[in-house]
Amino acid sequence: MKRVYLDANATTPLDPRVRAAMEPYLDCGNASSPHAEGRAARDAIDRARADVAALIGVVDQEIVFTSGGTESNGMALLGGLRASGKNRALCSAVEHPSVLRTLLALRPATDIVVAPVDRGGRVDADLEIPEDTGIVSIMRANNETGAIQPVAPIAARAAAAGALMHTDAVQACGKIPVSARDLGVHMLSMSAHKFHGPKGVGALWVSREVKIGPLYHGGEHERGLRSGTENVGAVVGFGEAARIARQEMEARLARWRELGATLEARIRAEVPQVIVNSPEDPGDRVPNTLNVTIPGVEGEAALLGVDLEGFAVATGSACSSGAAEPSHVLRAMGLSEEHTEQSLRISMHAQTCEKDVISFVNTLARVVKNLRALSV
Amino acid sequence: MKRVYLDANATTPLDPRVRAAMEPYLDCGNASSPHAEGRAARDAIDRARADVAALIGVVDQEIVFTSGGTESNGMALLGGLRASGKNRALCSAVEHPSVLRTLLALRPATDIVVAPVDRGGRVDADLEIPEDTGIVSIMRANNETGAIQPVAPIAARAAAAGALMHTDAVQACGKIPVSARDLGVHMLSMSAHKFHGPKGVGALWVSREVKIGPLYHGGEHERGLRSGTENVGAVVGFGEAARIARQEMEARLARWRELGATLEARIRAEVPQVIVNSPEDPGDRVPNTLNVTIPGVEGEAALLGVDLEGFAVATGSACSSGAAEPSHVLRAMGLSEEHTEQSLRISMHAQTCEKDVISFVNTLARVVKNLRALSV
Repeated sequence: MKRVYLDANATTPLDPRVRAAMEPYLDCGNASSPHAEGRAARDAIDRARADVAALIGVVDQEIVFTSGGTESNGMALLGGLRASGKNRALCSAVEHPSVLRTLLALRPATDIVVAPVDRGGRVDADLEIPEDTGIVSIMRANNETGAIQPVAPIAARAAAAGALMHTDAVQACGKIPVSARDLGVHMLSMSAHKFHGPKGVGALWVSREVKIGPLYHGGEHERGLRSGTENVGAVVGFGEAARIARQEMEARLARWRELGATLEARIRAEVPQVIVNSPEDPGDRVPNTLNVTIPGVEGEAALLGVDLEGFAVATGSACSSGAAEPSHVLRAMGLSEEHTEQSLRISMHAQTCEKDVISFVNTLARVVKNLRALSV
Repeated sequence: MKRVYLDANATTPLDPRVRAAMEPYLDCGNASSPHAEGRAARDAIDRARADVAALIGVVDQEIVFTSGGTESNGMALLGGLRASGKNRALCSAVEHPSVLRTLLALRPATDIVVAPVDRGGRVDADLEIPEDTGIVSIMRANNETGAIQPVAPIAARAAAAGALMHTDAVQACGKIPVSARDLGVHMLSMSAHKFHGPKGVGALWVSREVKIGPLYHGGEHERGLRSGTENVGAVVGFGEAARIARQEMEARLARWRELGATLEARIRAEVPQVIVNSPEDPGDRVPNTLNVTIPGVEGEAALLGVDLEGFAVATGSACSSGAAEPSHVLRAMGLSEEHTEQSLRISMHAQTCEKDVISFVNTLARVVKNLRALSV
């Protein structure tokens, strides 16, 4: 049975062109060795760095390769806070756990201010930055709802308050245009596997204006910010995924806008009482993502029901390592615990087609009908 | 021209069997997703974890996958020191920079005791552990000389002193038998690409007796110690490399002992005045490694000379990211700055053959002769 994968915000299929680019570099030299094998690996990394930098409109030398978005966020927050010399950080209530939990773990020694969101999951653009805030971290796009956050105006306020500004752009990069300079941030996190690149590699862009320290030391790779033998094959794949994403950005966006409209219309038509949790205005969200609540049906049951029929979707973040905690994102948006547990996230990737969307909604409608019949 | 790669301590060629095992998992689900794609990824990780655990004789659940040896060392040292609640750490002067620099960066708030080594690069087995030491970190095998350290007796002394004991076994695992329990350590670092596995993945073994915290938080993967979407393909490759290393350990060791003896004898015969820096007794070193000083010849010049002829070797660690600092390992062994800068590291991998060794020595002898003639 051919499966239909609609959980792209958890991870995406590897683009065959990315795989082809990676293959020669899975077996290669150590990029820090001065001999021919090492130099070939170094050249490949330099080329990939240029492609990754181009995706967010920055200078190559400001890209620090990491093992993924979670590490990028940890490095930005812990490094940024230390560099600021201050004792207060601000983030939103809907940040990814790698931001939220990393900051909350600093309590009580550090004051962590958690900004609320509205019903659409959006942070207030006029958010007040408390005095003596060392770092502000607001994600560019939310992984569970797709909500796009007003990063630029908040960054302007952070700058005025003398705070560093970081954005977790893991769910935005490769999906919507992202310009680090236009956003006005100092640091920006990326992850390759969210846009058809390989797992195990990400990046933190750190503006030259900012000097942060590393999480740990070693061979002082990546300008001393991230020691460890370079993961050459994965870095090369990241570069190729970035190059392709930049090239195909408009086509992907147009496709998702159309498919997203179909998905939402069909779900509203076929699944009685469905509530859409993603922002109402499609312009306020990454158009590959739709988050819904289906009253009377546990999200977990619906997920497993459609899984048996060949469809992969999510109840929320895939990051909680099996722990079935109710989504902190939907709770922060004001959903009841019940509605939170009755939510599903459908997220499309670059190869999702109309047939996938329609067959998914038909299957979901049937599964929901059966589950509701059972629970009566 | 077929190249001869003798820089295995920097990185090793990817075993074709490892590549074959990885291929299906380069494109796979998120191992934290509950649907079929996620479960398949999770199962693959579980199998790899068992193979990695078996290589060092521990329980699967105690293995924490990381992005490599450097991260494993950072996690062990910073996490261990914090868990100890103490303010003093001890390591040797010949540790890898990921141990040495990570600890030295904690000065002056933390007291860092650096233990000396003898002319063979070995730490004193009767090393005194100062009072109130939180953690002791002594590598199992040195990357530059191959010297095997007396970890077990030092671990016994650390235990008696109430200190945690960590060993960086990155250059030992997959090359010589390593039993975490026999060594008596609490934590042990590993890296896949040093024994024909992929780059970008390593592990920290953490005994259940010890509770350390993570470097940063997130989805709380790997028992909460290492958040971030699992690097499934690389983890699978690590497992396969560990399985193969365990199976072929004795054969590889026998081969290296024989080739190592040939290498050393030929080098002594063909390169006048050569000085062997690795421990004299072959039983005191990982037999794939030979470190020599060639008086009158800059290591860098010799490296580039043989590189042009198709041979890859190293002057020291490949970890210093282009920085041509003189080896802190050889300096700690008492070598003069001049002799340190005239050193070469030759390190064999599992596929190195006698022809490689002999043609390398012949080429080196010719290169050395030419360089010496030039400098007269």
